[in-house]
Amino acid sequence: MLSKNKIKLLRGLQRKKVRKISNFYIVEGPKLVAEILFSGADWDELYATESWLRANPILGSDKRLVLVNEKDLAQISSLKSPNEVLMVLKRDTVQDFSLIVSDPFVLALDGVRDPGNLGTIIRNADWFGVGHILCSLETVDQYNPKVIQSAMGSLQRVQLHYGNLIEMLSNFKSHTIMACDLSGTSIYECDFKEPLVLVMGSESHGVSDILSAEVHHNITIPSFSPTIDSLNVSVATGIVLSTIKGQIKLKK
Amino acid sequence: MLSKNKIKLLRGLQRKKVRKISNFYIVEGPKLVAEILFSGADWDELYATESWLRANPILGSDKRLVLVNEKDLAQISSLKSPNEVLMVLKRDTVQDFSLIVSDPFVLALDGVRDPGNLGTIIRNADWFGVGHILCSLETVDQYNPKVIQSAMGSLQRVQLHYGNLIEMLSNFKSHTIMACDLSGTSIYECDFKEPLVLVMGSESHGVSDILSAEVHHNITIPSFSPTIDSLNVSVATGIVLSTIKGQIKLKK
Repeated sequence: MLSKNKIKLLRGLQRKKVRKISNFYIVEGPKLVAEILFSGADWDELYATESWLRANPILGSDKRLVLVNEKDLAQISSLKSPNEVLMVLKRDTVQDFSLIVSDPFVLALDGVRDPGNLGTIIRNADWFGVGHILCSLETVDQYNPKVIQSAMGSLQRVQLHYGNLIEMLSNFKSHTIMACDLSGTSIYECDFKEPLVLVMGSESHGVSDILSAEVHHNITIPSFSPTIDSLNVSVATGIVLSTIKGQIKLKK
Repeated sequence: MLSKNKIKLLRGLQRKKVRKISNFYIVEGPKLVAEILFSGADWDELYATESWLRANPILGSDKRLVLVNEKDLAQISSLKSPNEVLMVLKRDTVQDFSLIVSDPFVLALDGVRDPGNLGTIIRNADWFGVGHILCSLETVDQYNPKVIQSAMGSLQRVQLHYGNLIEMLSNFKSHTIMACDLSGTSIYECDFKEPLVLVMGSESHGVSDILSAEVHHNITIPSFSPTIDSLNVSVATGIVLSTIKGQIKLKK
């Protein structure tokens, strides 16, 4: 049985502030936990039910394992239906920014607030081989439990960098900075060339005015309907990533 | 104040079975309700708080208006934070299928189960000018409250047709039937020609084996990463629709 203090500590990790101070976050469920175990990534603690431990004997008597009953698991889980296993990991430490600047393709998000959308965007980035995402400070925290669930393991392969987006973009001196918005050149008629930073705006406000001054070129996904006013931001990101990556692949 | 019976009746519409028997469904929130009012679509009842009625005097003393207090609204709403206004509408009656068969581009869904995904797919279809979606019987109900919320008004412009997908597809004798799956011709290298039916599979199982026999051509969204195994189905649908519609537009 877990102590009350331990439960309080683990539950606290559902909150952004606590994650930031403690430098830990939580990943839940057999599929995500298995991905992390197989990836060889570092982790700190693993809380699992007896049935999960019996089905996954590979960890042997690893000291980081903690056996929990279902009642305890329900108390520390952020899921409506807690799922056998929960892992505590250290948040990524800040990376050398000069490495990111040499990446030929970088995605930037200007205030994506919905955790499901951010998780899906991370999955899109992973699919299209994008290793780094720059996030404005208004963007939802990557370690939010709902982001982790919808990113489905891709968070282990895509690195997110939070900060002042204008300052971060100013480091990309040789990249073309393109922003996707409701007006601009049609993505079907653009000639995309790397190095490139693609900026996607928020769900309701698009790319912010203050950031627009840093953008070299606006692009848009043309609508085929007169009445609808916006696409979901994770779908829009997938469409633009696919168009750019597909075009560059065909040129090679 | 609403009677207990009326509350029970309206709450019942959150369930698929009750919607099917009664032939009614519910749309909630000022934005969606405004879209329906401005579209001129037919509706049956509108339950609104005093503040909404004051801000929206256009309906005058329409007999279909029902004033409710916030407590009543909370009881009949499916939302966590009920939102001023809720409308009752009649479900679409079955359309003449021969009209759909003459449509040059039709989308078909083979078992999309997540309501958020279906809602987003309906929005994608609307954006790319797709008027009809064929849905297998395993696909989540279009009048599910979560589908309606994430479709954001597009449900008024895109028509969904539920039935045995194999039987429905057998009517499309002059269409090429293409299915998007994990293997097939790259979407970046396909020559798309209408008339066309695009089949998208379910979140976890893709296109079902029994349906595969009806498919003329498999297409795929190539992955740029060796490790990730799938894209979100609403993102994948958006990407394929964009690729097809963009290519056909450029040819014209």
